[in-house]
Amino acid sequence: MRVPIPLAKAWRPFNHGPVTLISAAHDGVENVMAAAWVTPLDFDPPKLSVVIAADTHTRSLVEASRELVVQVPTVSMLDLIEGVGSTSGRDTDKWSTFGIARLREPGVAAPLVDGCVAWMAARVLDEPDLAARYDLFVVEGTAAWVDDRVFTDGRLRDAIPDALRTVHHVAGGVYVVDGAIVRTRV
Amino acid sequence: MRVPIPLAKAWRPFNHGPVTLISAAHDGVENVMAAAWVTPLDFDPPKLSVVIAADTHTRSLVEASRELVVQVPTVSMLDLIEGVGSTSGRDTDKWSTFGIARLREPGVAAPLVDGCVAWMAARVLDEPDLAARYDLFVVEGTAAWVDDRVFTDGRLRDAIPDALRTVHHVAGGVYVVDGAIVRTRV
Repeated sequence: MRVPIPLAKAWRPFNHGPVTLISAAHDGVENVMAAAWVTPLDFDPPKLSVVIAADTHTRSLVEASRELVVQVPTVSMLDLIEGVGSTSGRDTDKWSTFGIARLREPGVAAPLVDGCVAWMAARVLDEPDLAARYDLFVVEGTAAWVDDRVFTDGRLRDAIPDALRTVHHVAGGVYVVDGAIVRTRV
Repeated sequence: MRVPIPLAKAWRPFNHGPVTLISAAHDGVENVMAAAWVTPLDFDPPKLSVVIAADTHTRSLVEASRELVVQVPTVSMLDLIEGVGSTSGRDTDKWSTFGIARLREPGVAAPLVDGCVAWMAARVLDEPDLAARYDLFVVEGTAAWVDDRVFTDGRLRDAIPDALRTVHHVAGGVYVVDGAIVRTRV
């Protein structure tokens, strides 16, 4: 079940480096893309660094609206991840093409992608030089949710149903699925 | 076996978001720390974004020398990762305390940590505002190597010996180990 989590824990679902989906909306247009280069940058308030290539439709929506949702999909969604990562919203309605259900949250312009297991709504901080030089955006969380079957207290559970495991992008359509959880402290 | 890889492929071992070790040297002093917030930022020449907290000894070495080595350790090295991540080089000789063997490369000031499966030697680009605001450093690769039992053509092999799998930091001493490799394209 999708449940809200405190902002102070919103960095946690991104800490292990899973591939993400970025959704954005502006002026009635909504799009979603895949993004592997997403990393926590601070704890509280939570910040993420997010690389969004200059030629993407999502980038134009993010730059216009100054907000986005970053979310963590599962191994069950690999075709969707590849699909939204290899087409452009300029000429493809990704929502219908890939059968993506959108969830709505009050006060959040961008839709949340159904089936994901963690979501952070965020606003874009003012760092135009970073976008110009590195396609890098610094975003600060405004609200966050997790699927409580996967994350507890904001972080990965020890035992996760296989279908809900998160994935990491290796390169060119190859992904590695999360395996065992290991604890170094007792 | 550790083999050099072309710089154009040096981003790949970091693309799936594994935890890393950062080593640095200055004026005869060498240190190593753990860093989870490391992400590719560009392909060729390869760049990484690297978060190094302001109060770390490694940061002072990186800021003085303007170079570092970022490397990817394995699940066999979890005690070492936790050890170098929870002590300071200011009062602990991490090399002897954790029994870390150092490899040397001509032209690279920082030592490479033995037992890792990917290494990128890099220079720090001039972004003082990013360091001050976000503890963020942009580094550009100058040389790279991989263990060819784990990475082929710079990217994760389909089958990796269990002891050499890479790991991702969840939080507080908890890690998730790489599981199965999945291909979305045939």
